[in-house]
Amino acid sequence: MADIQTAKGVRDIPPVEKALKNKVVNVLTSVFELYGFRPLETPILERYETLSAKFAAGEVSDALKETFRLTDQGERALGLRFDLTVPLARYVAMNPTLKMPFKRYELGQVFRDGPVRLGRYREFWQCDVDTIGSTSMLADAEVLAVVSRVFSKLGLDVVVKVSNRRVLNGILVEAGVTDCERAIIAIDKLDKIGVSGVSKELSERGFSAKQIEGIFKFVKEGVSLKELQKGVKNAEAVEGLKELEELFLYLNSMGVTNVLFDVSLARGLAYYTGTVYEAVLRNGVFRGSLAGGGRWDNMIGNFMGSKLQVPAVGVAFGLEPIMDVLKMEQKVLGESVVQVYVLPIGVVQEGLMIVEQLRAKGIPAEVCLGKKGVSKNLDYASALGVPYVVMVGEDELKQKKVKLRDMKTGTEQLLTVNEVVKKLK
Amino acid sequence: MADIQTAKGVRDIPPVEKALKNKVVNVLTSVFELYGFRPLETPILERYETLSAKFAAGEVSDALKETFRLTDQGERALGLRFDLTVPLARYVAMNPTLKMPFKRYELGQVFRDGPVRLGRYREFWQCDVDTIGSTSMLADAEVLAVVSRVFSKLGLDVVVKVSNRRVLNGILVEAGVTDCERAIIAIDKLDKIGVSGVSKELSERGFSAKQIEGIFKFVKEGVSLKELQKGVKNAEAVEGLKELEELFLYLNSMGVTNVLFDVSLARGLAYYTGTVYEAVLRNGVFRGSLAGGGRWDNMIGNFMGSKLQVPAVGVAFGLEPIMDVLKMEQKVLGESVVQVYVLPIGVVQEGLMIVEQLRAKGIPAEVCLGKKGVSKNLDYASALGVPYVVMVGEDELKQKKVKLRDMKTGTEQLLTVNEVVKKLK
Repeated sequence: MADIQTAKGVRDIPPVEKALKNKVVNVLTSVFELYGFRPLETPILERYETLSAKFAAGEVSDALKETFRLTDQGERALGLRFDLTVPLARYVAMNPTLKMPFKRYELGQVFRDGPVRLGRYREFWQCDVDTIGSTSMLADAEVLAVVSRVFSKLGLDVVVKVSNRRVLNGILVEAGVTDCERAIIAIDKLDKIGVSGVSKELSERGFSAKQIEGIFKFVKEGVSLKELQKGVKNAEAVEGLKELEELFLYLNSMGVTNVLFDVSLARGLAYYTGTVYEAVLRNGVFRGSLAGGGRWDNMIGNFMGSKLQVPAVGVAFGLEPIMDVLKMEQKVLGESVVQVYVLPIGVVQEGLMIVEQLRAKGIPAEVCLGKKGVSKNLDYASALGVPYVVMVGEDELKQKKVKLRDMKTGTEQLLTVNEVVKKLK
Repeated sequence: MADIQTAKGVRDIPPVEKALKNKVVNVLTSVFELYGFRPLETPILERYETLSAKFAAGEVSDALKETFRLTDQGERALGLRFDLTVPLARYVAMNPTLKMPFKRYELGQVFRDGPVRLGRYREFWQCDVDTIGSTSMLADAEVLAVVSRVFSKLGLDVVVKVSNRRVLNGILVEAGVTDCERAIIAIDKLDKIGVSGVSKELSERGFSAKQIEGIFKFVKEGVSLKELQKGVKNAEAVEGLKELEELFLYLNSMGVTNVLFDVSLARGLAYYTGTVYEAVLRNGVFRGSLAGGGRWDNMIGNFMGSKLQVPAVGVAFGLEPIMDVLKMEQKVLGESVVQVYVLPIGVVQEGLMIVEQLRAKGIPAEVCLGKKGVSKNLDYASALGVPYVVMVGEDELKQKKVKLRDMKTGTEQLLTVNEVVKKLK
């Protein structure tokens, strides 16, 4: 086989990186469960009909265009899931007796046959937390508390920008804008290109000077809920502001202090219906979103083709950007899973007994499996980043001790196995 | 959408079952890491060329026939991986500077477009542990120690049957058998159909009475290594027996006592080259294999098209059968992730503070998100199997206490939040 490679747009996660990923996943899932979210696993293979149903009413989305399609031996049309939301909607629709609220989380691979560029893969992980079946702002507050606690446990100083789609929609309507989606695409860039940039783009998109003035009357950096409540008249916006007020009341009770109102936050996706939010580093080199979500009350009902609304609110964490930031901020170094490498010198069986003693105490330990010399073995342990090496030969055995080498400093100590356990624990 | 269902042959894992699966996975991975195996993640999408390369030399395997095939937008031929071994071989081949021995584990979905029947799905998990690059029986012993410790941590009384492919091959050659694979298919059924059944099948398969007699001279229940070492002359078998002797020496040093020699153990797969093993319940209703593996020294070299041998030894755990057995033996019940459900009665904000206090102490807690009455809320908590409910209203707040209800017994106690924490920890 001349040409050994991965498929285009996918990659292997080597051990050091996968160990870090596992750590992040453990933090995430432990917080999710702390807040009463339960794990769900949906399959990667879905009927193509299911994947395409979401969009039956609206335009064909990018995600659907990028769906990997395949058939099974019965010529059934299948696809690889492109997100975890459609499978969730299908699961809820298939299980009408599900107790509500249904609070679930899911982590797993999703697939998009799109253009490949740096940091964008055709197979990547999503990590979703959602509460289905509650219209209460308590559910929104809880999801935001999860976001806040996840990042605090990861040691990242994050601010969560929050708004409500109805506030921006109402302001736009009040400003005489009819095609809100088109305006929002420009407003979404306020962070990056400022008022003048957005004004220019709105003007290019055909909005009048009066409309643009109407928009920037309220859409400005640092505008508070209170100011808007005094100024904005539109009924939809007033409703949205009321929800935000209730949300902040609950967040306050929960001790969540890093959520800030940001009127310009729009989030691209058309399906959000109320609260929207996005977590970003407070002072970071990385400006992108680490987590984002909101309320999406219409999608499950639409999916089921029913007039019934099935309310939902949730958040998706970006595993890849979170890992990139942790690596940049060196919050989590690529640590070795293995704490000690045991190297028996001529006393294999005694070496095995010692390594088993260490493992029995819960210390991840590796033992020499080859016949190479001491220096080659030290090279191996060093290359894998194992912090300690235990060496044991006839001399040490006579003294009922082992030699413990600190791989960072190179110092060696003669210790009993119990002393080694104490040092490594 | 009239017809909402999963694709044929796949399924959702609902929260109670997924929580159990996560527990099993945590036990497995913690033992793997204790023994110095490192996590690896390979993609689900592979080039079809890679998936089919393994079999270039031999016959087309069932796994390859059952491969889900698809193409990307560049019309590249892809497939969904059907096991974790081919991706491992590709990873090793693509990373020539990998430090050896390379000890890795991987868990994840694999796909086979085969017939669907009870317990057999088209998308299922595999869980593999392998050491690449060591020919030492130490590596084999270590994998067996992992198997032994995993099941002891899961509370399952398992016996691991072990043999060496060269022993059986040698015995067959000594009995005048030339087509060993054909004979092994019959011998593999000794457990199920006994000596008479296997004799009959061998005879039907065209083996002579003399050959069959030669086989059963050594292939019999309970035959020991020592007996075979006295009787068997074939050089290949002698070599296999020597390896087994060394293996048991190491297992003894490691304190592994549930590994037993079983000469009839063959394992179907053609690629095993030395040690083979299989874990089964000692006295169980379930007779199938819970884990199995062996030494496969030729595959990676063949895959790379090189004359160089890349030795490998490993084991695959069957997540689904393990979970079935745990459920049957009621070793792990479907426990609720959530330990307590907090129900504020008219005091939402104080309720939020209390639930956050519990979470801060590490107690997974859910809070009422709706406006339903007390009995509906108790029904909800009960349906989800949450063991305790905290109720709090004006009266309790005045006394700086909450009411803790034990959902099993129905008894209620008036306690401070700290007392609740102590009770639930």
